[in-house]
Amino acid sequence: MSAWTDIRGFRFSALAAGIKKKGGPDLALAVCDGPAAAAGLFTRNLVRAAPVEVAARRVRSGRARAILVNSGCANACTGAAGLEATLTSTAAVASALGIVADDVLPASTGVIGALLPAERIVASAPALVAGLSPDGHAAFADAIRTTDRFAKIARASAGPADAAVHVLGMAKGAGMIHPDVGPPQATMLAFLFTDALVSAGELAAALEAAVDRTLNVCSVDGDTSTNDSVLALASGASGNPVASKDLEAAFTEICDVLARAMVADGEGAEHAVEIRVCGLASDADARQVARTVATSMLVKTALFGKDANWGRLLAAAGRAGVAFDPLRASIVIAGVPIVEGGATLGADAEARASAAMRAPSYAIDLRLGTGPGSARYLMSDLGHGYVDVNAGYRS
Amino acid sequence: MSAWTDIRGFRFSALAAGIKKKGGPDLALAVCDGPAAAAGLFTRNLVRAAPVEVAARRVRSGRARAILVNSGCANACTGAAGLEATLTSTAAVASALGIVADDVLPASTGVIGALLPAERIVASAPALVAGLSPDGHAAFADAIRTTDRFAKIARASAGPADAAVHVLGMAKGAGMIHPDVGPPQATMLAFLFTDALVSAGELAAALEAAVDRTLNVCSVDGDTSTNDSVLALASGASGNPVASKDLEAAFTEICDVLARAMVADGEGAEHAVEIRVCGLASDADARQVARTVATSMLVKTALFGKDANWGRLLAAAGRAGVAFDPLRASIVIAGVPIVEGGATLGADAEARASAAMRAPSYAIDLRLGTGPGSARYLMSDLGHGYVDVNAGYRS
Repeated sequence: MSAWTDIRGFRFSALAAGIKKKGGPDLALAVCDGPAAAAGLFTRNLVRAAPVEVAARRVRSGRARAILVNSGCANACTGAAGLEATLTSTAAVASALGIVADDVLPASTGVIGALLPAERIVASAPALVAGLSPDGHAAFADAIRTTDRFAKIARASAGPADAAVHVLGMAKGAGMIHPDVGPPQATMLAFLFTDALVSAGELAAALEAAVDRTLNVCSVDGDTSTNDSVLALASGASGNPVASKDLEAAFTEICDVLARAMVADGEGAEHAVEIRVCGLASDADARQVARTVATSMLVKTALFGKDANWGRLLAAAGRAGVAFDPLRASIVIAGVPIVEGGATLGADAEARASAAMRAPSYAIDLRLGTGPGSARYLMSDLGHGYVDVNAGYRS
Repeated sequence: MSAWTDIRGFRFSALAAGIKKKGGPDLALAVCDGPAAAAGLFTRNLVRAAPVEVAARRVRSGRARAILVNSGCANACTGAAGLEATLTSTAAVASALGIVADDVLPASTGVIGALLPAERIVASAPALVAGLSPDGHAAFADAIRTTDRFAKIARASAGPADAAVHVLGMAKGAGMIHPDVGPPQATMLAFLFTDALVSAGELAAALEAAVDRTLNVCSVDGDTSTNDSVLALASGASGNPVASKDLEAAFTEICDVLARAMVADGEGAEHAVEIRVCGLASDADARQVARTVATSMLVKTALFGKDANWGRLLAAAGRAGVAFDPLRASIVIAGVPIVEGGATLGADAEARASAAMRAPSYAIDLRLGTGPGSARYLMSDLGHGYVDVNAGYRS
């Protein structure tokens, strides 16, 4: 097993710049020692925050040197003033680093509609750069949190032991989580760093494939954000190339860990549940059903109540717009079969399923036919905690 | 103003048949004194309860004599046994009425997956028929409730005073409310009765037009039901014909009252809010945006918190898949302008909006451009009450 600091070519830093109302670390910086290959995926929401516009434009070059992230303010819906605040912030950090502003990729998360206080970032830039350290990743992951109860970090390695490359991932996200990120366009933020020697194209391909199977199939509340962003930098500092499939596997492993962590940390969530749908005509059909089940308020409240309410599962599947025969449906909750041939297996089975639903994480399998299509979705339950977090988020 | 009992040709009855676990009235019957023109709209969910299958088939004839409704059990996902239970129940009531079973339209609401106890309905049929009365509508509306806090009844009249026709509507629905009912296919249940002299075709046309503008644009939780049904019977007993537009207007008036009542009674809801979207390219675009805003968990929790969180409103609109320029967006909450040109009008405006959001019902206007397309959606907020109702619904 590799150590957190095995990855070469990156330094990290974080501090409290006074952006968060409640105080605490709210500004984070990741810097590559030299030019890095860069790739990014951004929210497909029509309303895109200023930092998303800037990062999406800059990453098109396929190279970057740094990622600057603030929490406590999304700088979304802030118009020309918001754009200027983002540009000023990245310029100040670039200047302190001695690089050009176009090499700094910005990301923001927090309240929508509030203008980023650029002057605080400008004032903090020298200290932020002075604090850069190869083992600063934990401080970075901590500073990008908003409603997150814990920081999200994952690592992986790929390739032979004598020519290994390393991947490090950090993410934030607990609410407004239903990422839908794609090429040139999640307030999920996720950052992947690798010391592999890869081109920007290879990096982008691995990132897209990994995100589609992981971060794009997780949902806390069905709401995509104006700020969702996934950024990847490759330093090349290991000196080792890596096979595309190996890099993709390592990215997928890390993004899966980060996606599960986000759902487990879903605002007020007590359960992280994997919905697995199979037996449909196509993977796309299965994904549509899995998404509909994962975002159903009635399913989410039933999970909170540890109620093996298979009727709600079937009813949600039935409104997904996908053809299947309800009379051939079978459902297994946390390993306990409760429906076969569209009918209940009885009160005992439901009671056993309900008991198994006390676990913090488990899977629900819906087999809806004999077709080859399958898909999965990661979801959280909906309980009082979610209401508490979101009814008073801005107060 | 007409009285509740001005409508001619109908009698109503209700009693406690022992279907609801908690007891109380759970079986209701409406009977037309003679052959009635009939029309129906049913859920478009792929999973349809046995009573929906039976009512949809029977209503195709354009005529019926009675509507039999039970609460406490949806008789959905119950297979052949469920179908048999529905057929047996309607046959018993038909027999007690001295009519054929095909003239009885069934509807059920309650827990999915539980088999309708037909034997209790068979045993209750004679007393149910014996209790029929022209002023039994209030008992009918009461008996069809499940999680509803209050019964929902509305009335209207159409035509000149000396040749007036009357319309009476009753509905139930507080959760699993996001009706999507269409020709030959909503656990919203709504029943319309009129003494107008109209054909089945005229009745169906008025019903479809009215429902599309009212019941089909209201949402408590975004979940369509396996049992949603809207049924209309016309007795002709007034002896008066009615212009199509007048019948449609009366039906729309009643369905609007019933839709607003359902949203106000949304499970655990404290606010009924009308989302009004305008300025888009088409009504369809506007409806898509209104639907996305009305079903956003983040918007719903903000309404519960009386938080004028316009960022969530814009972010939800932005993920609706409809083109608009966020920089031209204006937002008015409960009559208080809070966003102009995509930017906040300041903290004072938001504070005034927040104060206005204490009202039990109000409107939110989103003007997203200068196009001709507009639409509306009725929604409820999401608070602790919703979680309480739905986490323990079956216990």
